[in-house]
Amino acid sequence: MSDARHKVLVITSGGDAPGMNAAVRAAVRMGVHLGLDMWGAHRGYHGVIDADIEPLTNRSVSNIIQRGGTVLHTARCPAFREKEGRDRAAAVLTENGFTGLIAIGGDGTFSGLIALDHHWDGLTVGVPGTVDNDLSGTDFTIGFDTAVNTALEAIDRIRDTAASHDRIFLVEVMGRHAGFIALAAGIAGGAEHILIPETPTDIEAIGRAITAGRTRGKTSQIVIVAEGDEAGGAFDVGEKLQDLIGSDYRVCVLGHVQRGGTPSAADRILATTLGAFAAETILDGVSGQMVGLVSGDRRRTPLTQAVGTRKTVDPYLVRLIGILSQ
Amino acid sequence: MSDARHKVLVITSGGDAPGMNAAVRAAVRMGVHLGLDMWGAHRGYHGVIDADIEPLTNRSVSNIIQRGGTVLHTARCPAFREKEGRDRAAAVLTENGFTGLIAIGGDGTFSGLIALDHHWDGLTVGVPGTVDNDLSGTDFTIGFDTAVNTALEAIDRIRDTAASHDRIFLVEVMGRHAGFIALAAGIAGGAEHILIPETPTDIEAIGRAITAGRTRGKTSQIVIVAEGDEAGGAFDVGEKLQDLIGSDYRVCVLGHVQRGGTPSAADRILATTLGAFAAETILDGVSGQMVGLVSGDRRRTPLTQAVGTRKTVDPYLVRLIGILSQ
Amino acid sequence: MSDARHKVLVITSGGDAPGMNAAVRAAVRMGVHLGLDMWGAHRGYHGVIDADIEPLTNRSVSNIIQRGGTVLHTARCPAFREKEGRDRAAAVLTENGFTGLIAIGGDGTFSGLIALDHHWDGLTVGVPGTVDNDLSGTDFTIGFDTAVNTALEAIDRIRDTAASHDRIFLVEVMGRHAGFIALAAGIAGGAEHILIPETPTDIEAIGRAITAGRTRGKTSQIVIVAEGDEAGGAFDVGEKLQDLIGSDYRVCVLGHVQRGGTPSAADRILATTLGAFAAETILDGVSGQMVGLVSGDRRRTPLTQAVGTRKTVDPYLVRLIGILSQ
Amino acid sequence: MSDARHKVLVITSGGDAPGMNAAVRAAVRMGVHLGLDMWGAHRGYHGVIDADIEPLTNRSVSNIIQRGGTVLHTARCPAFREKEGRDRAAAVLTENGFTGLIAIGGDGTFSGLIALDHHWDGLTVGVPGTVDNDLSGTDFTIGFDTAVNTALEAIDRIRDTAASHDRIFLVEVMGRHAGFIALAAGIAGGAEHILIPETPTDIEAIGRAITAGRTRGKTSQIVIVAEGDEAGGAFDVGEKLQDLIGSDYRVCVLGHVQRGGTPSAADRILATTLGAFAAETILDGVSGQMVGLVSGDRRRTPLTQAVGTRKTVDPYLVRLIGILSQ
Repeated sequence: MSDARHKVLVITSGGDAPGMNAAVRAAVRMGVHLGLDMWGAHRGYHGVIDADIEPLTNRSVSNIIQRGGTVLHTARCPAFREKEGRDRAAAVLTENGFTGLIAIGGDGTFSGLIALDHHWDGLTVGVPGTVDNDLSGTDFTIGFDTAVNTALEAIDRIRDTAASHDRIFLVEVMGRHAGFIALAAGIAGGAEHILIPETPTDIEAIGRAITAGRTRGKTSQIVIVAEGDEAGGAFDVGEKLQDLIGSDYRVCVLGHVQRGGTPSAADRILATTLGAFAAETILDGVSGQMVGLVSGDRRRTPLTQAVGTRKTVDPYLVRLIGILSQ
Repeated sequence: MSDARHKVLVITSGGDAPGMNAAVRAAVRMGVHLGLDMWGAHRGYHGVIDADIEPLTNRSVSNIIQRGGTVLHTARCPAFREKEGRDRAAAVLTENGFTGLIAIGGDGTFSGLIALDHHWDGLTVGVPGTVDNDLSGTDFTIGFDTAVNTALEAIDRIRDTAASHDRIFLVEVMGRHAGFIALAAGIAGGAEHILIPETPTDIEAIGRAITAGRTRGKTSQIVIVAEGDEAGGAFDVGEKLQDLIGSDYRVCVLGHVQRGGTPSAADRILATTLGAFAAETILDGVSGQMVGLVSGDRRRTPLTQAVGTRKTVDPYLVRLIGILSQ
Repeated sequence: MSDARHKVLVITSGGDAPGMNAAVRAAVRMGVHLGLDMWGAHRGYHGVIDADIEPLTNRSVSNIIQRGGTVLHTARCPAFREKEGRDRAAAVLTENGFTGLIAIGGDGTFSGLIALDHHWDGLTVGVPGTVDNDLSGTDFTIGFDTAVNTALEAIDRIRDTAASHDRIFLVEVMGRHAGFIALAAGIAGGAEHILIPETPTDIEAIGRAITAGRTRGKTSQIVIVAEGDEAGGAFDVGEKLQDLIGSDYRVCVLGHVQRGGTPSAADRILATTLGAFAAETILDGVSGQMVGLVSGDRRRTPLTQAVGTRKTVDPYLVRLIGILSQ
Repeated sequence: MSDARHKVLVITSGGDAPGMNAAVRAAVRMGVHLGLDMWGAHRGYHGVIDADIEPLTNRSVSNIIQRGGTVLHTARCPAFREKEGRDRAAAVLTENGFTGLIAIGGDGTFSGLIALDHHWDGLTVGVPGTVDNDLSGTDFTIGFDTAVNTALEAIDRIRDTAASHDRIFLVEVMGRHAGFIALAAGIAGGAEHILIPETPTDIEAIGRAITAGRTRGKTSQIVIVAEGDEAGGAFDVGEKLQDLIGSDYRVCVLGHVQRGGTPSAADRILATTLGAFAAETILDGVSGQMVGLVSGDRRRTPLTQAVGTRKTVDPYLVRLIGILSQ
């Protein structure tokens, strides 16, 4: 393998996102096709620091495209946030002859790549793998579509049972700092109210709207709450609404369910495209970039920009919430 | 319709259960086939008390077999727990010429039927429709299989993300008084621990087992908690385990998600069989019975026995939990 | 309603596409919000010709966002291809005071709209609703994402059973003139070969590749066939491959399964956005346009261009097929 | 391991059935718990003949309970039908010190076990793993419930699109000799006609019923065809009906899709129970038996009886087809 054009390490890092395996598969197979020497580390930056690595071949990534989670495992790595940890990682990369590092993850993962750049002179490429969809430079992140569909299934099921009950149903979805999942699942599920961090939440106005909806004959009232909304989680919001309008409430907290599951077609195609493009990016000798897909076109965006520019929710969808939930 | 052999009212009552629509459809179509005059009331016993009724034809129940929820709507009816409410219901039934009442629901619904028997001399038939599976006289209740599969999907998704994290994942499922859903979903999901009301819960033993599992190299630890377990809900159990062994935990509370969704094949077949058999039971002039399916055979069990005899979880499955979650 | 700013008729036409109901709901509710008088016709252009129409309110479109098929029903209408039929339709529209027509469908539906323009002076708006994704002016058509996920589920299931058998598995998916579904489902499913109308199919090369894959130890070989591929359907291709390399083969023909089912989140959001935007387009007084979504932005494209410009499959994905299926 | 009470080989054989992995996992973990020395062979009887075996531990069967297919792989093995092949298998078993063989499969697999009994004096246990459900001695076979749900999803999707079309939709499901899948999926899907090998098929009567249904206003007509029906497959039946009543038809052939997919909760619980019980059966020194579940109770049935007694479809369900599809 000494004549390979690059020796490349692949990691998955941060929270799991469905489609990470498809990205690993595509990066490895495209890398092999391009004559790169492909390796994987386990548990994200932990595996780099600990030199917990293995060579990856076309066979290694067989039959994983449809599987949730990540065969390389993922983890958050506090040690990597310290200079000492990054020095250690850089030493491992250099000692093992790596000239490229492909990291699949979210903003924390990319901040790690950016920081590593000061310690190591190999090529770094970020692949956007996070259910949160909060990265600039790509229409969607890997895992977002699956997470939204998972939340949507829950909303649909609750809708079946919500009719005719004098109750408010609250569904808490992921999103500490961003409302992408809440907004998408809520619009798709026809939710009456969607609480997201990006917009101010007026509990009293929601209470009045619920009461008005009942007067109009609405048979169900479903409220989607992004976990990071300033009004609190679903239990908090339910309690406040009960105090305001006296309605009983029921809560569903989806939690990590949204990080797992067989990835959707869109997530697999996105992951496949970006994984392959990441390997090509290494071959092109380009570094410090996130690969993304914008309106079907492959794009490279500086990691600093992908992390630093705030992606905003679609204001048209926000406007539709009130208009369509009549 | 004056020459119909019976005028029969169908209601769905209590908590929603997937498959209720399939039971309504089968009762109506078999009833029509047998020459009965079929009607439906809305919102369970409310609709009886309020005479909120409509005739049901073969067309009325078209294209509903696959739908979650119930087209007749369901509700709990406190008024029916009072003698006055039941008197009013009996008067409505008599005034409208009904000679049969088919009620699809759980133990509360059946207790209502039993109580009504003292006020009205028509024929009463219960159809077991509840996700809880806690009725004697039938292997399974309508809705149980779907609810278990819904809980199982959540467990599978969490399993994808649970690997390699130093975390405990807790999934809270339905079951205030019975652990059928928790046990079935937990066994099917390969959960490490299953907390049900029927068995004593020893949090300290669970903490020790989790620690031991980690030592053995187990990469995930999933705990299923029936909402009615004496140790509390999933958040309570998570907190206690964290105090004991210092592990971080993540919670999923499924809630009413388990009551909705497209019914499974098994639930539809069960509902279809029992709905049809309920109409035949009216024609046979039999009253005060619950229809059930035992090992593929249609059975009638006195409502008092269906409600009064405690159905127990399978001790073999309980024994398997510890053996199989190695 | 005489003071409504427009009286608008909504139809769904051509082959069913999951998400049509979400588009109808959004068009109606946004229309009501904008002060338009909203109506629906049944069975596409049939309902226009026959004046089979009904007013649509916010309540009419309750609880349909999640349902497959279309509550307005759809049909192909040969009569509308004749001048006489379109004259009749125009007369019905005029006599009933309609000033706008929103048609949800594919290229046949839009060709109808274009032709109607010579007979009627109302405003026409097309909403791209077809599983085929073969319309220019929008990144995706409503129904495509769901259809691809449906095909993908079938491929995943077959993959489970394909291991270790000395067999070729062929899956035939929709696409008479376009390979979008085949390409997307095949890439997402990790298919070994994908036969689409847009590219020449060399059966002998495929046979050699299958044999070579076996030699390399591949345990399964899945071939996706778009129904319109020039090599024939899945049975034809299977027969030819058997003749060439002597392998047994198994076929799955999905057919109309791909047109049904609960719409995916992406299809519902797309349908919701475009349905609402169609109503706004009427209010804006714009005619002869298809509404579409390009990289998240709402766009209007002349119907003639949407139908007349050939949308091409992504050549990068086509190139990936051979590279990734190692 | 020489002090293990038994050295046991596990195989999966015949057509794949969802849940086979859950059965392997339970057999292995219960076996380990009981002090047995557990091994697996690959590709069914092929792996026995070729001594292609590996030890199985608790870790070997981690994280497979939810996976379709079988980690041991399965195959049909013509060599095992010859005395020579069975002699070879018996020699391998003896030479390797095996005293028990657990075979998960259908009637062909069990016939193999019965035949092996004349060549080898170890203990044989059969576990019913086949989507066909055609084995006596168990209410259901492992894989049947999942296969039915898979077929049902296809029927539901077609139902969405079947409304208002002057078309007949035919769905071909598995069942060469038995109509269990067709009957269950057809009843659950509300199919208008269900063609199974067990009952005579009168195409002309079906044609008349379809015409009569249209006259009554039925908006869709779905026909389920078991692949082994004497009238032929779905394409044949569609052609005949078209000739008779002039209707256009559309066909879905599900094929091996029905053998794959994540197993349902019921299949996993059944497989878990029977896998564990198979290991206990070895410890009990019982041989030549199939383990089964009858109304929740674990049962042993002589393999000869499980294979030799014809299991019949539920005549009540057969009777319901015509009554309920009005």
